[in-house]
Amino acid sequence: MKMNIAIFLFIAAVSGTSGINAQRTDDSLFIRRIYDEAMMNGHAYKRLEELCKGYGSRLSGSDQAERAVVWAGNMLRSYDFDTVVLQPCMVPRWQRGQTEVLKVSSPLLNKRLKQFNDTAGWACEALEERYRKEAASYTLPACALGGSVGTNGPITGILRVVHNQAELDMLGKAGKLKGTMVLFNEPFDEKKISTFSAYGGCVYQRVNGASLAARYGAVAVLVRSMSNSCDLHPHTGVMHYEDSLPKIPAMAVATSVANTLAAVAHDSRLLLTMNIDCQTLPDRLSHNVIAEERGTEKPERFIAFGGHFDSWDQGEGAHDDGAGCMHAFEALRLLKTLGYTPRHSLRCVFWMNEENGARGAAAYAAEAAKNGEFHVAALESDRGGFTPRGFSLDADETQMALVRNWAPLLAPYGIHLFEKGGAGVDVAPLKHGLNSINKEMLQLGLIPDSQRYFDYHHAETDVFESVNRRELHLGAATLAAMIYLLDQNLD
Amino acid sequence: MKMNIAIFLFIAAVSGTSGINAQRTDDSLFIRRIYDEAMMNGHAYKRLEELCKGYGSRLSGSDQAERAVVWAGNMLRSYDFDTVVLQPCMVPRWQRGQTEVLKVSSPLLNKRLKQFNDTAGWACEALEERYRKEAASYTLPACALGGSVGTNGPITGILRVVHNQAELDMLGKAGKLKGTMVLFNEPFDEKKISTFSAYGGCVYQRVNGASLAARYGAVAVLVRSMSNSCDLHPHTGVMHYEDSLPKIPAMAVATSVANTLAAVAHDSRLLLTMNIDCQTLPDRLSHNVIAEERGTEKPERFIAFGGHFDSWDQGEGAHDDGAGCMHAFEALRLLKTLGYTPRHSLRCVFWMNEENGARGAAAYAAEAAKNGEFHVAALESDRGGFTPRGFSLDADETQMALVRNWAPLLAPYGIHLFEKGGAGVDVAPLKHGLNSINKEMLQLGLIPDSQRYFDYHHAETDVFESVNRRELHLGAATLAAMIYLLDQNLD
Repeated sequence: MKMNIAIFLFIAAVSGTSGINAQRTDDSLFIRRIYDEAMMNGHAYKRLEELCKGYGSRLSGSDQAERAVVWAGNMLRSYDFDTVVLQPCMVPRWQRGQTEVLKVSSPLLNKRLKQFNDTAGWACEALEERYRKEAASYTLPACALGGSVGTNGPITGILRVVHNQAELDMLGKAGKLKGTMVLFNEPFDEKKISTFSAYGGCVYQRVNGASLAARYGAVAVLVRSMSNSCDLHPHTGVMHYEDSLPKIPAMAVATSVANTLAAVAHDSRLLLTMNIDCQTLPDRLSHNVIAEERGTEKPERFIAFGGHFDSWDQGEGAHDDGAGCMHAFEALRLLKTLGYTPRHSLRCVFWMNEENGARGAAAYAAEAAKNGEFHVAALESDRGGFTPRGFSLDADETQMALVRNWAPLLAPYGIHLFEKGGAGVDVAPLKHGLNSINKEMLQLGLIPDSQRYFDYHHAETDVFESVNRRELHLGAATLAAMIYLLDQNLD
Repeated sequence: MKMNIAIFLFIAAVSGTSGINAQRTDDSLFIRRIYDEAMMNGHAYKRLEELCKGYGSRLSGSDQAERAVVWAGNMLRSYDFDTVVLQPCMVPRWQRGQTEVLKVSSPLLNKRLKQFNDTAGWACEALEERYRKEAASYTLPACALGGSVGTNGPITGILRVVHNQAELDMLGKAGKLKGTMVLFNEPFDEKKISTFSAYGGCVYQRVNGASLAARYGAVAVLVRSMSNSCDLHPHTGVMHYEDSLPKIPAMAVATSVANTLAAVAHDSRLLLTMNIDCQTLPDRLSHNVIAEERGTEKPERFIAFGGHFDSWDQGEGAHDDGAGCMHAFEALRLLKTLGYTPRHSLRCVFWMNEENGARGAAAYAAEAAKNGEFHVAALESDRGGFTPRGFSLDADETQMALVRNWAPLLAPYGIHLFEKGGAGVDVAPLKHGLNSINKEMLQLGLIPDSQRYFDYHHAETDVFESVNRRELHLGAATLAAMIYLLDQNLD
């Protein structure tokens, strides 16, 4: 391995031409201009504020989402991009109900609260105080998972806690889950440096927990929130039912509550009462929002980049994924403002319905295939508006080498990760879908620092104030720099 | 250059032995254990909470600082380190007064507020609302700079705004600063990716502004807060007087206020009234707090690492520099908990008085010299508790190469920066001081992500809640891993 690197560097040193060096200098100077404009005059942060504060959350099929789509179209039109279109797609429409209650009864609960407080070292005092108050009333911070059926009036069940699937199967096969409410309580593996890896290891509880427990006769499930933080916010998210099994209701509970319930349930029978009236309505018409700058050399070849415009209904969808949409919009604005003439056609896309269906991504890919729009590359930003660190590449070895060769150009801006991996849910159909028009397409997902992402993810804390202006603008500039390099170097 | 690298890699490839590879595997495994323990069972976050919430800010010479020193000694003793000592040092004692008022009178001010709000795009609504309220009462968010003299009752002056030293000199030489209050309003250069670079370019205003303006007859100075964010918090910090010039009072004003004052002053004479009764009291006895694990092979050779325990009196000194102290304590705890037997003596130091005198650092270096304690390396963490990115090395080329050779061991944890630069104010005297015992010492400063640092720096926002548990614990583990590598590899 080292020998190969040595030989490569040796050849590079000997064969380097002034033409290549001049190109690299030009690239370096232009990328500097991109970052300068983003950091001095960036538009992403103020547009994100307008979106979050003016429209709030944007659950697929909600009136709020539709109003925000209109705003996005008008906002993009104000920049005089070559074209701005709303691309229709039908989206599912799950709706949280007016009633959303989870109660617990146990004489032991208050006594055990002190023990919880003694062991949960990192909970700050204010948080503990709020917790005591809420727990004393026996109403727990919880919310329905997206896609859950309602309870059709209050239902009750004894709490059973499981920490992994083996435990679930053991209890289930022993008949101990019949008529119970099962709490899935496997915490994030804090040892994983990327919090997305920890999420990946736990999210089966949220997505499949209801059907896993229904198989053994449970009447409802609670799922420990998908978060690294010990807090009081339930984190919602999508869940699915297996068709062959009873559909039982599912709620997320805050991580601190999951800890406490698990501790108390260990030596006390807890009776839970759940009452939620969420429902799934008929599909509704919605839209992807697309802005395009036409390519000069190869207008029929596309580079698409974007985030998803829908969000969950907790918080304001600021990091997930208002940030990604604003990254993409700002990348297009930066290139236009700097007078850049793209070789390929550049498309900024706000995909609709990533959270619970990815119908927008499917519609975009189908339309691209229908129109024969050959995509040479696609980029997605759906990991929050934090300091950018690099890219996850869905790429072959030649493409990996090409992109890694640009590392020195991006290093001054803290970009150092070029990992092989998935690029994102919304760009994937363009490459891997049944009617993909280019299965060799280079796809990239922006990787921001992940440490805080799941503090906010799908929770009421995912609001504009949780986004830092500089971190957001660095992300937009990084996306723009990568689009520029792709546009310059791809055929 | 590339030729040299090629030859080096070639030799490395040919001469690599299985012994070296085995060592690297051992290192890799042990570093994994360090991070695992930090992320699963880290103590830094809960100890930081105790410090911040139990004692608050820790201005040198304050009663709060002294109480916190006692806590720190007891806290460290509870871990059964080989020795824990309080090392005496005299510290200066500047004290903020009870009175701290900056008022402005102008009939135009309210009218201009709307214009400010229209242009300051990134200020969120809530912030603007609060601003309107405060501005309407004509009392501006401002605080005395550390070291400032008091006003001895209310003083007044017409506002003059300058944006750089040339502008100051021009106005001063034209006699236009006599009797005025000068606002130094040079903003951070947002183009700089490291916010510390932007700080470095602006901080002269805060440190030297009073004397620079006094030279031209100004009666007081205001300094735009050293921050990237457009907010309402004055950010304090140290300032110095030149002995030969009149000592005039100095206050920091919030960045949003500096923007507004500058806009209004452009076409309107603003009369300011300042009243502050801060003062400097006689020096007071304080202490560095030191915990040590004795080396087994070379106990007379030391690796020191730490942060500074004092803070400014706004906020709780959470990022600056409670985080650095907790990094250092946790690094020592991690190594001890994992059963590591250090070759060198390892010293965790909480230095006192970094903010306005660095007397603790001087006392530590003097004591080390007196006792002939040869330091082979020193590490400092004083850039906040954010996601760690690497190290700034005060090192010669051989040392740089040594440390960079460890990059692959730290890359899995997101550590990628190994830059030549300063290590920190508190370790510097050990190497560069008059009585340094080792002028070839390797010194390292931890580099966390810098984007948010100056949102909190020296302001009321620097509280425990602004620190993320995982980011803090990653920093502690990174420090511990570097100490381990130094201990294993240095003579």
